[in-house]
Amino acid sequence: MSEPRAPHEIATVACIGAGVIGGGWAAYFLSRGLAVRAWDPGPGAGDRLRRTVDAAWPALTELGLAPGADPQAITLHPTAAEAVAGADFVQESAPEDLELKRSLLAELAAAAGPGVVVASSTSGFPMSDMAVAAADPSALVVGHPFNPPYLIPLVEVVGGRDSAPWAVDAAAAFYRHIGKSVIEMTRELPGFIANRLQEAIWREALHMVAAGEATPEEIDRSITDGPGLRWPVHGPCLTFHLAGGEGGMAHMLDHFGPSLKAPWTRLDAPELTPGLRDDMVAGAGRSAGGRPMAELVAERDRAVIAVRRAVAAARAAGDRA
Amino acid sequence: MSEPRAPHEIATVACIGAGVIGGGWAAYFLSRGLAVRAWDPGPGAGDRLRRTVDAAWPALTELGLAPGADPQAITLHPTAAEAVAGADFVQESAPEDLELKRSLLAELAAAAGPGVVVASSTSGFPMSDMAVAAADPSALVVGHPFNPPYLIPLVEVVGGRDSAPWAVDAAAAFYRHIGKSVIEMTRELPGFIANRLQEAIWREALHMVAAGEATPEEIDRSITDGPGLRWPVHGPCLTFHLAGGEGGMAHMLDHFGPSLKAPWTRLDAPELTPGLRDDMVAGAGRSAGGRPMAELVAERDRAVIAVRRAVAAARAAGDRA
Repeated sequence: MSEPRAPHEIATVACIGAGVIGGGWAAYFLSRGLAVRAWDPGPGAGDRLRRTVDAAWPALTELGLAPGADPQAITLHPTAAEAVAGADFVQESAPEDLELKRSLLAELAAAAGPGVVVASSTSGFPMSDMAVAAADPSALVVGHPFNPPYLIPLVEVVGGRDSAPWAVDAAAAFYRHIGKSVIEMTRELPGFIANRLQEAIWREALHMVAAGEATPEEIDRSITDGPGLRWPVHGPCLTFHLAGGEGGMAHMLDHFGPSLKAPWTRLDAPELTPGLRDDMVAGAGRSAGGRPMAELVAERDRAVIAVRRAVAAARAAGDRA
Repeated sequence: MSEPRAPHEIATVACIGAGVIGGGWAAYFLSRGLAVRAWDPGPGAGDRLRRTVDAAWPALTELGLAPGADPQAITLHPTAAEAVAGADFVQESAPEDLELKRSLLAELAAAAGPGVVVASSTSGFPMSDMAVAAADPSALVVGHPFNPPYLIPLVEVVGGRDSAPWAVDAAAAFYRHIGKSVIEMTRELPGFIANRLQEAIWREALHMVAAGEATPEEIDRSITDGPGLRWPVHGPCLTFHLAGGEGGMAHMLDHFGPSLKAPWTRLDAPELTPGLRDDMVAGAGRSAGGRPMAELVAERDRAVIAVRRAVAAARAAGDRA
C-alpha cells in the first residue's frame, strides 16, 4: 500500500484538461496557495486557461486568498505525463468520453507518484467503468465538482471497485482541507447525487420544451423567482419539512402524499411505503438538528431576503458596467 | 361579461383557508396595504393565522411595507361566503383535495361579486378539473404561489376551459401590481411549470432514499452546497448555457448530449432532435439577452458569492439568537 499524501503536504496539483471545469479547478487550487501544472491538447489551450484564471481571480480575491496565492504559479506542459511529474494530487477534467477517460486515466495512474491520488471530474461515469485500462487503479477516484469549481463548494467523492480506501479518504481529506463541502459516497451511482437531481429537472425541462408546454425562458424564471430562491439555504427535503407547517415532513407527506400519484412530472414516483415515510421524517428531523419549526422558518426568511437582494445587486452591477 | 376590478381598485382580499399557504398570502396582502377577510374551518385557525402573520411581519417590514400596511387589518369570518362578501379578490388555499376544492370553488364563485376573480393556490390541479361544480366558472383561475407566498415572487396564472380571459388577465395584472413575478400560462399542465421541475427532483430524491442510495441529509447538502447556489440567479437553461463555456448551450448539448442517454436519473430523456436542440439554443440566447458569455459569467460569480455570504449570515444570525 502507498503512503498517501496528507492534505497539508500537497503543494502542487496537476490539472489534466483545461476547459471550463479544468480551468476552474486550476483557478481554485491557485487561490488556495497551491502550484498548478496543466496539460490540455486543444488548440489555444494556454490562452484559454489564462483567461479562465484571470476571469475567476477577482471572485477568488473577494472570497479571500490563501497566503502566498499567486495566479501566475501555473505552468502548461506538452504531455500529460510531464504535467503529472512531481504533482502531489492530480485532477482530471477531460471531455466526457468514456474511451478517452479510460486511456487517459490509465496513463495518469502510471505517471503519478506513489501515494498521489488521481481524481476525475467526470459528471457521472462510475470509476469502476473508467478504471478498466489502468494497470494499477488503486489511486483512481471520482472527485466531482460543480461549475464553477472555484465558487461552488460541493465535491462528490467516490471510489470504484478497485480504488484503494486510502485514495478515497485522501481525496476527501484534501478537498475538505482546501475548503470544499465533500460528500463521500460509499457506493457508485451514475450521476452521483446532485447531478441525478439536477438531471431530473433538466430532462423534465427538455420534455416540456419539446412538447411545447413551456419555453426555456419560462422554465428559467420559474426557478429563479420560485423554488430556486429556497435551495441555497434548505435542500429539497428540509424545504418540504417547512412546507408541512407545524406538522413538518410528516404532515407534508400525509397531506401531499396523493400528489405523488399525480402527473406532475414524467418521472414516476416511488411507492410511499411506511418505511420511506419514516425515513424521510427522520431525515428531516436530523437535518433540522432539533431546531423548532419557528427557528427554521426565521432562518429561511432571513436567507431568502438576503438571497433576493444579493441577486438583484449582482444583476444591477452588470447593468451599470 | 363582468367588468373586472382594475389592480389599483382592489382594496380587500378574501383568504379562504389559512394554513401555511393561506396565512402566508394573508401576510403578503396585508404588507401591500390591503385588508384581508379570512375564513378557515379548522380548530384554532384564528390563532394560527395570527402567528403566521406575526412571524412573517419582520421579514415583510425588512423588504418594505406599502403605505398604510397594517398587520391588524385582518378579520376572521364564520363562513366562506361571509369572508368573500365585499372582497375585491379571492385567494383560495384549502387543502389539496379535489372534491373539497370543487365544492368550495363553486361556493366561492357564487358568493363573489361581479368582476371579482377567485384564484386557487392549488399546487397542481388544472382548473378545468376543479371548476366542474360551479354554476358560473368564468371567474375561476389558478394563481399558484410558492412557499412562503410572502417572500417567493413567483405566481403561476392559468385558466381552465371555462375561465373567462378577463379573469386570467385580471389575476395576472393584480399579482404584478402587488410585486409578484407572474408567469401567465396559455395551456393547462398538471403541476404547472415550477412544480413539475421541483417534483422531478423530489421524486428522484425519494427514489434514492427508498433504494438506500443517499440519505435526506446528503440530498439536501448536495443541493445547498451545489447547484442550488446557482439557481437563484440563472435557471436550469441559462446555467447549462454557461456550462458550455464560450460555445454556450450549443456546445453543451453537443458535448453532454450523450449523457442524456446515461442512467443519471430515473426519468427517461426526450430525443434530442435537431429541433429541440435549436429551440434550447435559441431560448438560451434569448435568456442571455445578447449579453456576451464573459458578462454572464461575471454576473453569476458576483451572485454566487453574494448568495453564499447571505446564507452564511442568515445561518449565523440563528446561531446567535
